[in-house]
Amino acid sequence: MSTTLSWLTQASKSLSQQHLQLAQKRQAVLTKPAGSLGAFELLAIRLAAMQATQRPSADNVSINIFAADHGIAAEGVSAFPQAVTAEMIKNFARGGAAICVAAKQNSANLHVWNLGTVAPVDCGAVVKNRIIAPQTANFAQSPAMSSDQLNNAMLVGVEAAESACLPEGLFIGGEMGIANTSAATAIATVLLGCNVSDLVGPGTGLNADGVKHKASVIDLALKRHNLSGSDALQVLKSLGGFEIAALVAGYIRCAQLGIPVIVDGFICTVAALVAYRINPSVLDWFIFSHQSAEPGYQLLIKAFPNQVPLLDLGMRLGEGSGAAACIPLIRLACAWHNDMATFEEAAVSEQSEY
Amino acid sequence: MSTTLSWLTQASKSLSQQHLQLAQKRQAVLTKPAGSLGAFELLAIRLAAMQATQRPSADNVSINIFAADHGIAAEGVSAFPQAVTAEMIKNFARGGAAICVAAKQNSANLHVWNLGTVAPVDCGAVVKNRIIAPQTANFAQSPAMSSDQLNNAMLVGVEAAESACLPEGLFIGGEMGIANTSAATAIATVLLGCNVSDLVGPGTGLNADGVKHKASVIDLALKRHNLSGSDALQVLKSLGGFEIAALVAGYIRCAQLGIPVIVDGFICTVAALVAYRINPSVLDWFIFSHQSAEPGYQLLIKAFPNQVPLLDLGMRLGEGSGAAACIPLIRLACAWHNDMATFEEAAVSEQSEY
Repeated sequence: MSTTLSWLTQASKSLSQQHLQLAQKRQAVLTKPAGSLGAFELLAIRLAAMQATQRPSADNVSINIFAADHGIAAEGVSAFPQAVTAEMIKNFARGGAAICVAAKQNSANLHVWNLGTVAPVDCGAVVKNRIIAPQTANFAQSPAMSSDQLNNAMLVGVEAAESACLPEGLFIGGEMGIANTSAATAIATVLLGCNVSDLVGPGTGLNADGVKHKASVIDLALKRHNLSGSDALQVLKSLGGFEIAALVAGYIRCAQLGIPVIVDGFICTVAALVAYRINPSVLDWFIFSHQSAEPGYQLLIKAFPNQVPLLDLGMRLGEGSGAAACIPLIRLACAWHNDMATFEEAAVSEQSEY
Repeated sequence: MSTTLSWLTQASKSLSQQHLQLAQKRQAVLTKPAGSLGAFELLAIRLAAMQATQRPSADNVSINIFAADHGIAAEGVSAFPQAVTAEMIKNFARGGAAICVAAKQNSANLHVWNLGTVAPVDCGAVVKNRIIAPQTANFAQSPAMSSDQLNNAMLVGVEAAESACLPEGLFIGGEMGIANTSAATAIATVLLGCNVSDLVGPGTGLNADGVKHKASVIDLALKRHNLSGSDALQVLKSLGGFEIAALVAGYIRCAQLGIPVIVDGFICTVAALVAYRINPSVLDWFIFSHQSAEPGYQLLIKAFPNQVPLLDLGMRLGEGSGAAACIPLIRLACAWHNDMATFEEAAVSEQSEY
């Protein structure tokens, strides 16, 4: 690991054990059977511990989409042409994409970070241009990134995390990049020590033949790279995308700053796995949002002990859309925790001795 | 069935097949891989067909809590004392209960219908008093309701449904009534033709011995009633609660009026099953909200063909709280459907031939 990246392994902020316990006690005296709000109770308790407060809040959410092109697209591994990455950045800027609608619906701030596309993008100040290169190198032939490119891409994630640090802010990372499920699948295959076939899926919509081709491209590439025993950062550099590197760094920096992270679907969860392998202390700060329909997700989520995503609604869009769908659930968890009456306040009898 | 209840079997409003197809076509041209918003796409399409519109909406939601006491509580089948029903009605009136907080958080209208409690309730105009009796008869000894009581309880549900008919209104029913998982379990056991042990659970929080006792009380009661071969209305009259009868009628009336119903957890889903058995045409109008942690739910939901609840978050509170948690998800489904750009509008390339 280069010295410029030594910050990555610095410890995440500690949770407040005091506020964790206070929140647990409060949940036990609210006017409901103990535990009857299920995951909402655990969410509120976790958030109280993260924010070191008796009144957790998810009012301020910063959604950050990282977009970049991938050299591996040349191998025909995506159902969509590579031009779509740049076209979708314009769609983000104009507010027409799913994540834009979800951000507006939930009064969340939306930031779009362009790390480099093959087709030019000019959207003025709406999109933050942090161009690393037009695309990564094709990892079927060579490492995806140089060390400098990796470092620069990670700095974009750091910038996003640091600008998300509103009072009690939450961070959502999203991604856009044609062929990036191939990069993510390749990374996860190495980190989980499994077979490509255990993880590969249709991405944006490949048919069975397309998935088979994608699997063989990734399989062949991994044989060339021979990454077994490599650390997570080396794997990221060899196979990743600029947007995935930005997500990894953004997640780690959020955990260090004490900003809760709502992790989106398959690609973001691969980025979360890289972050967790680099720095296990980040896990306290991750809220997994939804079980992606990309089949590899089911194996992937098992790499994080005791983590269950909130939603399982067959989503596979990316852009942070599944994480954004959880914003109102997290807000409801906070509202229940903060605003329900206690048994004593409401003069409601408590549970009998059963 | 008495003549006064003959309205129950009248057909539900038909879905608009034209708007169903228009909505399917629109989902296919929005700037996302086809199908990638999963259940959100299906929700928007269903709602467009229900509302016969190209712009489905869930802005107006009417939450109706039906509360009533149960004679079966005398058998010691609940973890909470019977006084809690009346105490919780007061808590609803003062805004301290989970459903009040969820209603406020989601800008939904909340109505509380009191169908009768053993302890007196006086909350002024906030609670709508439609008292049938202080409680149902103990169904371990006799039928829970008379025909008049059943009819009057159902009229309360009709009144709630008809007052929910705002422009593009959605209906949530909720329930409160100590011992009402016993009534619901007894009804479902008969309607599904299964064993009490397949469905019985802890309700508000019985321990293993408590669940065993509850099961034996229900089992013995069902042997006395000998309801095999009875129609759903007879089963409801014999075992149900006033609030369950109101839910059944409210659901059926909503379907007839063309008001989408968001069905809450275990008890509400038993009411939905009674409604469905009385009048199968209601099913088009049901949106199942969440998989209750009450173990019987898993068998119960299978009685509705092809229905999958939206959330699985370990909730078991009742009050309509799980249905209310789905309001923002349904609104997001509408926003995505209505406000995303199409491929043509955004000049985004469509899927290649894979």
